[in-house]
Amino acid sequence: MSVGTVHGVGLGPGAQDLMSVRADRLVRSARHVAYFRKAGRSGQARAIVEGMLHPDAVEIPMEYPVTTEIPLSDPRYNAVLSGFYTACADHLLALAQSGADVVVLCEGDPFFYGSFMHLYTRLKAAVPVAVVPAITGMSGAWTATGQPITWGDDVLTVLMATLPEDVLATRIAATDALVVMKIGRNLSKLKRALHAAGRLEEAWIVEYAQMPQQRVQRLSEAGAVTPYFSIVLIHGQGRRP
Amino acid sequence: MSVGTVHGVGLGPGAQDLMSVRADRLVRSARHVAYFRKAGRSGQARAIVEGMLHPDAVEIPMEYPVTTEIPLSDPRYNAVLSGFYTACADHLLALAQSGADVVVLCEGDPFFYGSFMHLYTRLKAAVPVAVVPAITGMSGAWTATGQPITWGDDVLTVLMATLPEDVLATRIAATDALVVMKIGRNLSKLKRALHAAGRLEEAWIVEYAQMPQQRVQRLSEAGAVTPYFSIVLIHGQGRRP
Ligand SMILES: C[S@@+](CC[C@H](N)C(=O)[O-])C[C@H]1O[C@@H](n2cnc3c(N)ncnc32)[C@H](O)[C@@H]1O
Ligand SMILES: C[S@@+](CC[C@H](N)C(=O)[O-])C[C@H]1O[C@@H](n2cnc3c(N)ncnc32)[C@H](O)[C@@H]1O
Repeated sequence: MSVGTVHGVGLGPGAQDLMSVRADRLVRSARHVAYFRKAGRSGQARAIVEGMLHPDAVEIPMEYPVTTEIPLSDPRYNAVLSGFYTACADHLLALAQSGADVVVLCEGDPFFYGSFMHLYTRLKAAVPVAVVPAITGMSGAWTATGQPITWGDDVLTVLMATLPEDVLATRIAATDALVVMKIGRNLSKLKRALHAAGRLEEAWIVEYAQMPQQRVQRLSEAGAVTPYFSIVLIHGQGRRP
Repeated sequence: MSVGTVHGVGLGPGAQDLMSVRADRLVRSARHVAYFRKAGRSGQARAIVEGMLHPDAVEIPMEYPVTTEIPLSDPRYNAVLSGFYTACADHLLALAQSGADVVVLCEGDPFFYGSFMHLYTRLKAAVPVAVVPAITGMSGAWTATGQPITWGDDVLTVLMATLPEDVLATRIAATDALVVMKIGRNLSKLKRALHAAGRLEEAWIVEYAQMPQQRVQRLSEAGAVTPYFSIVLIHGQGRRP
């Protein structure tokens, strides 16, 4: 019996028809569909494909271990996560070795700050792994603002709001165009950094880009709370004949 | 008669099945299809949709004016280009006002360093313009290398190789992950900047990502000539449990 392939399938920002034709085909025909989710949640990647899965598809939810009792800075936090990814990879490896193809659902593009990457590094030496690139959340977000993100030779910097405030401020001051991801509870820190860089007024926030709940606002007019699925951006103002 | 819509349709990096389902539908059903190309060339965007267009589709090639006699730094260069974009926009405007929908083919994502943006700014106040985001060339490129581009809180910097050498070197030294576009004749300048930043050995070059002619190499092992459709990148090495 031949070995199966693990497909890391990027789903794009959220709208089903923004999935690639290749992703659409893989998702609809898959018999084994794996995805990450928080315990007790349905999971964003799974939500994107609602109504598309084959009636015989076996679902493999991979639930992040509850880690609220261990602080992020604690080395045990990393050890718990690492063990979790290894257990997930082992499960998919066994499936593939039994001859099954497995589709792993990924939000946005799999190789751009994605969780699938942790499975990929653990699997790629052992079984065939195919990765389907996709529209990133940030492309979905800047399109939602109705303004191009970069012109001419604008410099674009992509930052995670999990970085320290002073690092954020320095980087934000030094770029033309800006994308910030992983915002959620880091929103007030990010706002202070934008203010320190003198750029708060230029910033936009896009929640749930290309999803039914999409919301686009100037950051200075937005509230104090934002979901994990939000992106802050500043449009470049480069050369435009 | 109702006014038509101008659709700026991102095609993604090159493979037809990496087009979104929405783009695929729009391209196959379009009766008016516009695209930029250099005089005497077939045009990359047009090449991507080969075999997909409706038999009744009217094609509208928009040929860049030949500008080799005017240097890029000359203000007349900008004036010529600006006049060209305005003429193209006027043509599409007239079509839309006559009730026709027009699909403008765009390489990668339309709002990410794209030529369509110059039509968009000229048209959006006058007729409905819809933009379809897409997989960027850089997503196609990092997927082709078989390595994730960013992990954890890596900083990603996107640069155009048209920037001055010292600016490139400073920016390259200061980032975790790197994407450089618009390489072509700027290749040797970019190599010197990577060397000055101490990062030449980390760099990869991807020509024609996700197209039949795709080529992936370490930059230090690549030749001295590269096409316009190439991307240089350095993978981030951030946190990975
Ligand atoms: C772990 S990263 C995954 C990024 C994803 N691989 C991509 O290509 O966009 C999660 C972050 O992506 C951003 N994100 C992804 N899709 C989004 C969307 N549709 N709307 C808003 N934010 C999104 C949010 O900032 C979120 O915190
Ligand atoms: C004017 S920019 C257009 C970018 C496009 N809108 C995107 O989203 O990728 C042209 C540059 O994009 C890069 N590029 C776009 N698609 C590519 C591909 N499939 N392979 C290699 N480079 C590509 C090249 O660096 C090229 O010089």
